[in-house]
Amino acid sequence: MGPGPSNVSPRVLLAMARPTVGHLDPAFLELMDELADQLRELFGTANQMTIPISGTGSAGMETAFDNLLEPGDTTIIGVNGVFGQRMVSNAERAGARVLTVEAAWGEPLDVGALIEAHKSAPEARLLAVVHAETSTGVLQPLEELGAYLQDSGTLFLVDTVTSLGGVPVKVDERGIDVAYSGTQKCLSVPPGLAPITFSERAMERIGSRKEKVHSWYLDLSLIASYWGGERAYHHTAPVNALYGLHEGLRAILEEGLEARFDRHRRLGTALQNGLMKRGLELLVDEPYRLPQLTSVLVPEGVDDKVFRRQLLERFGIEIGGGLGPLAGKIWRVGLMGETCREETVTLFLGALDELLEGKS
Amino acid sequence: MGPGPSNVSPRVLLAMARPTVGHLDPAFLELMDELADQLRELFGTANQMTIPISGTGSAGMETAFDNLLEPGDTTIIGVNGVFGQRMVSNAERAGARVLTVEAAWGEPLDVGALIEAHKSAPEARLLAVVHAETSTGVLQPLEELGAYLQDSGTLFLVDTVTSLGGVPVKVDERGIDVAYSGTQKCLSVPPGLAPITFSERAMERIGSRKEKVHSWYLDLSLIASYWGGERAYHHTAPVNALYGLHEGLRAILEEGLEARFDRHRRLGTALQNGLMKRGLELLVDEPYRLPQLTSVLVPEGVDDKVFRRQLLERFGIEIGGGLGPLAGKIWRVGLMGETCREETVTLFLGALDELLEGKS
Repeated sequence: MGPGPSNVSPRVLLAMARPTVGHLDPAFLELMDELADQLRELFGTANQMTIPISGTGSAGMETAFDNLLEPGDTTIIGVNGVFGQRMVSNAERAGARVLTVEAAWGEPLDVGALIEAHKSAPEARLLAVVHAETSTGVLQPLEELGAYLQDSGTLFLVDTVTSLGGVPVKVDERGIDVAYSGTQKCLSVPPGLAPITFSERAMERIGSRKEKVHSWYLDLSLIASYWGGERAYHHTAPVNALYGLHEGLRAILEEGLEARFDRHRRLGTALQNGLMKRGLELLVDEPYRLPQLTSVLVPEGVDDKVFRRQLLERFGIEIGGGLGPLAGKIWRVGLMGETCREETVTLFLGALDELLEGKS
Repeated sequence: MGPGPSNVSPRVLLAMARPTVGHLDPAFLELMDELADQLRELFGTANQMTIPISGTGSAGMETAFDNLLEPGDTTIIGVNGVFGQRMVSNAERAGARVLTVEAAWGEPLDVGALIEAHKSAPEARLLAVVHAETSTGVLQPLEELGAYLQDSGTLFLVDTVTSLGGVPVKVDERGIDVAYSGTQKCLSVPPGLAPITFSERAMERIGSRKEKVHSWYLDLSLIASYWGGERAYHHTAPVNALYGLHEGLRAILEEGLEARFDRHRRLGTALQNGLMKRGLELLVDEPYRLPQLTSVLVPEGVDDKVFRRQLLERFGIEIGGGLGPLAGKIWRVGLMGETCREETVTLFLGALDELLEGKS
C-alpha cells in the first residue's frame, strides 16, 4: 500500500518466469507488436510510436525530455511536487531554458498561470505537467491545457506514471503529445519498464533535431528501428520484464478500463472517507484527490517512522512517508491496481485503529 | 545458442516470480547488500561502488562514459567490432574528443598501438577496450594495458558484457578502473540489468566533475545515495529483476568461478574442434578465441537465413548472424552460462550435420 511498487498478481509473476527467448525470436517479435497495441489502448491513442522503454518510469521521463529538447530550447514546467522538480532536472540537463510555474505541494497547478506563462514564452518547445503527483496525491486537470496547446507550436508533455491504469489518461482526446508511465503503479507489473507514447508532431520535432540525443540508450530514433518494421538490433530487450507487462496489460484489458477506473474511484473514496471518519486530515482537497494515492497528515503525537515500522512488522503493510517539505508530515497510502481491493481498505483501517488506539 | 540472451535456469526464473516488495523494504535492502558483495566476488574487486544499473548492458556502457567524461575530454577507444563502435558513439555524445585504434573485425586490438596512442595523448581521461567482442568472438588481452595505465592519469575502462562469468575478468588484479557487464550472457540471467564497478580513482574523477552528468537516470552520484548508506530514493529499483540476478549469482558462486571458467573452456573447445573437424572455418585465431562465443564462417553455398530459420524451427536452436561487415558471412554460436552444456554442443553439431548434409 505504498506509492508503488503495488502488488503484482500471480499470473503476471508467473509470466515473468517463462523461458527467456531471444530478442529477435519470431514469437517474441509478435509479442512486441501485441504489447504496442495494448499500450495504445491503455493510453487512449492511435500514436504509432507507443512502446515500453527499457528502464523505470524515470527513464521514461528522461526519454521524453532528452529526445524532445535541444540546448537552448525553452520549456515550461509545472512544479508542485518531487516529480515536477525531477522534470526540471531532466530539462536542465538537456540544456534547456526552464520556466517553472509552481504551486504549493498538495495543490494542483493553476491552469491559468500555465497559460499565462505560455503567452509570455510562446516559443516554448514543451509544456510539461505531472498528471498524478506521486509525492502529494494530487490529480492535475489536463483538458483545458491540452485544448489550448493544440493550436500552438508547443508540445504537451504529461507524466502519467501514477495515473495510467488508475484514472482516465486519454492521450488523443486530451491533446497530449507525449506521455510516459511506469509499470509498478496502477498497472501492477514489477518496476523496470516505462510505457511511453509520442504524437506525430512530437516525432516530427525529433526528426528535425540539429544535434544528436545525448543518450544513446534512450535515443528514440535508434529504438524505433528495433520496435518498427526493420527489427534492427539496438539493445537487448528485457525479455522477461516484457512478458510480465504483456500479461499485466492483458489482465487490465480483460477487466476493462472503465471498470478498473470505477474500482479505483470507489475504493479510494472508501479509504478517504474511512480516514476522515477517524478524524484524520487529508492533504488534498476533494476534486483533486487521487483515488489510487491518498496523502493523509500524520496525526499529532504519532511518530511517523515507528508507526510505519509497526504497520509493516505487525500487519505486513507498507505505506510511504512524505518527501521533501512533506517528510515526516504525511503518509502516502496507495490503492493501485492489484492493491486496490476492498479487503485492503478494511485491513488498513483496522490496522490503523489498532495502532492509533489510546494514542490521541 | 545465440550471442545472448542465454538460457536461464528454472531457479532464476522462479526467483523472478517472487512477490514484489517495496524498494525500501528492509528485506530488500539486505538483498541489495548481498548483491553488491556477490558482484564484487564475480568482478574480482574490492571496489565499494559495485552495483547493478537499472538497464541492459548498453545502459551500463552509457553509465560509464556519461559519468566519466565531460565535454572536451580526450578518450582513446579500441575498435574491432560493434561494441567498440558503440563506445565511440557514447563517448562522442558525452562531448569527448575520441581517438580510435582500430583492428580488423575478428582480430584483437594491437596493445602496442594502444600504448602508442596513449603516448601521443597522455591527457586522455579514459582508454577503453572490449574484453569479449560479441560481434566477432574475439578475446582481448588486458594485463599489459592494465599494468601500463596504472602509472598514468588515464582510467582503464573495459566492456565485460560477454566475458563476465565466462572467462576470468579480475578487475583489481588487472588494474581495471571501470568495468560494466550485462546479465543475459554468461550470467544466464534475463536481460535488463548491467552490473558495473568503479575504482576509487574513477570515483574521484566523478567527484571532481565540473558539469553535471547528462543523464539524471544514470547519474552515479545520485544512484550511489540509494545503494549506499543513506538509502535515499532515486528511481524505483527493478525489484524482481534484482531477485533474478541475486539468485543467478548465488548459482554461479556455488559452482565456483574456476569450475565455471573450466566448463566454458572445455565445451567451447569441443564445439570449435567439432566445427573444424567438419571442415568449417573459424573467424578468430586460436589464442584470441572466446570459448563462450564462437564465430564460424557460413560455408560456401549455404543460405545464412534459411539455415538459421531451419535450425530454429526444426531443432529449437537460435544462433546469431553476423553484424556490420560480417553480416551474412558468419554465424555466432553462444555457449554461455546455462547454455554451455555437453548436450548443447552435441545437439548443435548433430543438427549442423543434418542440415548441411548433401549441401557441400
